[in-house]
Amino acid sequence: MYKILAKDGSAKRAEFETVHGRIQTPVFMNVATVAAIKGGVSTEDLEGIDTQVVLSNTYHLHLRPGDDLIYRMGGLHKFMSCNKPILTDSGGFQVFSLAKTRKIKEEGVYFHSHIDGHKLFMGPEESMRIQSHLGSTIAMAFDECPSANADHDYVKMSVDRTTRWLRRCKDEMARLNAIPYTVNQKQMLFGINQGAIFDDLRIEHAKVISDMDLDGYAVGGLAVGETHEEMYHVLETVVPYLPQDKPTYLMGVGTPANILEAVERGIDFFDCVYPSRNGRHGHLYTNRGHINIVNAKYEMDDTPIEEGCQCPACRRYTKAYIRHLLKAGEMLGMRLCVLHNLYFYNHMMTEIRDAIEKGEFQTYKKNKLYGMLEFDSENSTSYTGIDKNWRKG
Amino acid sequence: MYKILAKDGSAKRAEFETVHGRIQTPVFMNVATVAAIKGGVSTEDLEGIDTQVVLSNTYHLHLRPGDDLIYRMGGLHKFMSCNKPILTDSGGFQVFSLAKTRKIKEEGVYFHSHIDGHKLFMGPEESMRIQSHLGSTIAMAFDECPSANADHDYVKMSVDRTTRWLRRCKDEMARLNAIPYTVNQKQMLFGINQGAIFDDLRIEHAKVISDMDLDGYAVGGLAVGETHEEMYHVLETVVPYLPQDKPTYLMGVGTPANILEAVERGIDFFDCVYPSRNGRHGHLYTNRGHINIVNAKYEMDDTPIEEGCQCPACRRYTKAYIRHLLKAGEMLGMRLCVLHNLYFYNHMMTEIRDAIEKGEFQTYKKNKLYGMLEFDSENSTSYTGIDKNWRKG
Repeated sequence: MYKILAKDGSAKRAEFETVHGRIQTPVFMNVATVAAIKGGVSTEDLEGIDTQVVLSNTYHLHLRPGDDLIYRMGGLHKFMSCNKPILTDSGGFQVFSLAKTRKIKEEGVYFHSHIDGHKLFMGPEESMRIQSHLGSTIAMAFDECPSANADHDYVKMSVDRTTRWLRRCKDEMARLNAIPYTVNQKQMLFGINQGAIFDDLRIEHAKVISDMDLDGYAVGGLAVGETHEEMYHVLETVVPYLPQDKPTYLMGVGTPANILEAVERGIDFFDCVYPSRNGRHGHLYTNRGHINIVNAKYEMDDTPIEEGCQCPACRRYTKAYIRHLLKAGEMLGMRLCVLHNLYFYNHMMTEIRDAIEKGEFQTYKKNKLYGMLEFDSENSTSYTGIDKNWRKG
Repeated sequence: MYKILAKDGSAKRAEFETVHGRIQTPVFMNVATVAAIKGGVSTEDLEGIDTQVVLSNTYHLHLRPGDDLIYRMGGLHKFMSCNKPILTDSGGFQVFSLAKTRKIKEEGVYFHSHIDGHKLFMGPEESMRIQSHLGSTIAMAFDECPSANADHDYVKMSVDRTTRWLRRCKDEMARLNAIPYTVNQKQMLFGINQGAIFDDLRIEHAKVISDMDLDGYAVGGLAVGETHEEMYHVLETVVPYLPQDKPTYLMGVGTPANILEAVERGIDFFDCVYPSRNGRHGHLYTNRGHINIVNAKYEMDDTPIEEGCQCPACRRYTKAYIRHLLKAGEMLGMRLCVLHNLYFYNHMMTEIRDAIEKGEFQTYKKNKLYGMLEFDSENSTSYTGIDKNWRKG
């Protein structure tokens, strides 16, 4: 199912076979939180921006419109008319970050809906059942993501529980996939490595979950407040202990620079709301740094966001027009910006795959970072990310 | 330039040649108030919904981003990347309906911007200069649209002034079109018949403006509060006095039923914000009456908005999905609804043209109205229109 086509240092260029199509990695998944990419982007639009995999959020869909409804409509692929692989998260991260008043027990988490406050419970079995209802291509295991400040004792206790939860997830998925009326009986399960920034816990956990023969392995609990250096250190520490014959996924990361650094450390899958969220605010990625399209200097700019870019916005529209649309509050402005940013990310992954195949990843990475940093006259935060709340969906 | 291909009673099937392409009439123009159709619809999307002509608003574009800017960007076609004919209104209607504190004088109208309140003046020459800057295919003459309650004396005085303004518009456009650096030196001018609901004034004015050999003739000052019967009566009264070898345009109208009635009375061009505005609120047109997609009964409806409809929404998405998107506040929901409604209108015009060519317009009209009225279980206002404010842009 997972086949490495080329390596360049630790960077891997691979293919991952799924029931909904073959994924070329490294890949950036495009976030469609409630079964739609924010900014008026349709599944039809995805063809024009080179999207390979869509990511939807289990917690949001469970609350609205409800996974029961999506199950009855034939699953998420049919519901949102998407013929590409879809990965769903477990809902755990949103339970921990969005829900009000939560209580973690051995059986799972008690919490209140962030929409209407009603009492809910989610544990490993519930998460698997919801994701089975959704019928996603890849389901994520239900885990706890401890805070970046948690101490070693707490994290050890939490990781052990996450391991027990993972066993329950695996059992429940096996049971669900064996039921004939399950939407996707070939649904795959990715486990999630935790351990915060403690090397010993990360490594120990990686070893334990590696033995469970899952379809893929994520590194979770990062991009939650630690420094970039800490994040890269965790990857260097833990990725070598994850199975080499399975894909790896760095959850919720990140900036173009983060992705380049993580690819170098052996990561295959990425997701992040940066490109769509920043796009909706007119913050646009280019190879010469990020630009804020509502800046007055673009008022009369009759060039595309980036010369040579093949996205639907740049192929047809100018900065002056897109700026006007945003200033006038026209939805089309946001849509064009989101399309550009998603294409920028997706296209960067294509470049990354090409570079690894050619054994030129280091050169490519250096040049890409140089361009984005050196010419970024508008905002020095483009390297570290523009928006700090980018994991909330 | 204007060639009648078939007639069926007073209903005309014609072609109108413009510098931006040939228009098949009767035609419904799609409203792009500030150089974009509201609801995230791009000029690229227009191919999929059979749009022939786009209408933009002079008043709005003059205020933001400014017609100077659009002129420097090469005109409206280039600015919004539109390769179809564009009609611009004169700005007069918005000055009278949107602007605060206006004073009408012989030279034009003094008013305050509805955006920031600053003092402005617009007269026939200003309107022509702005529209010349925009470089639209068809410019509309600057007129006064008296209120539906105005008395005979006021309307007579107003119509006479509108006639004097029309002469000034024609002279100014001739001057502008002769200037080499004008965006569109082949810009056409449509005159506007006024006279409220007074037959004598309507007919007298129609005769006077018919003698001025303009490129087309609009019937204005309707859909401003009079009854539908009064509107149809005005059309029956005045259209026979307008040149038969020029296109006619009923401004700001209306519902599908209004359009069918007006086509029967010899009208070629239509525009209305109904389909896009109603779409943004989830009010959708179908051949069996209008539906409100957020209605609970569509929660599990896995059929398209209308079976057999070839619009981008119906070809791919279900009512249940579109309902979910609107309930979740996702832009994509609005966009799909707007695309459906615009296609419904545009496709109805195709059906109308076919029916006239076959000499079957009466049968077609009867069946279309019967379907829309008889099966309309959700809202009896679909015949007379859902939203009373549909001319404000």
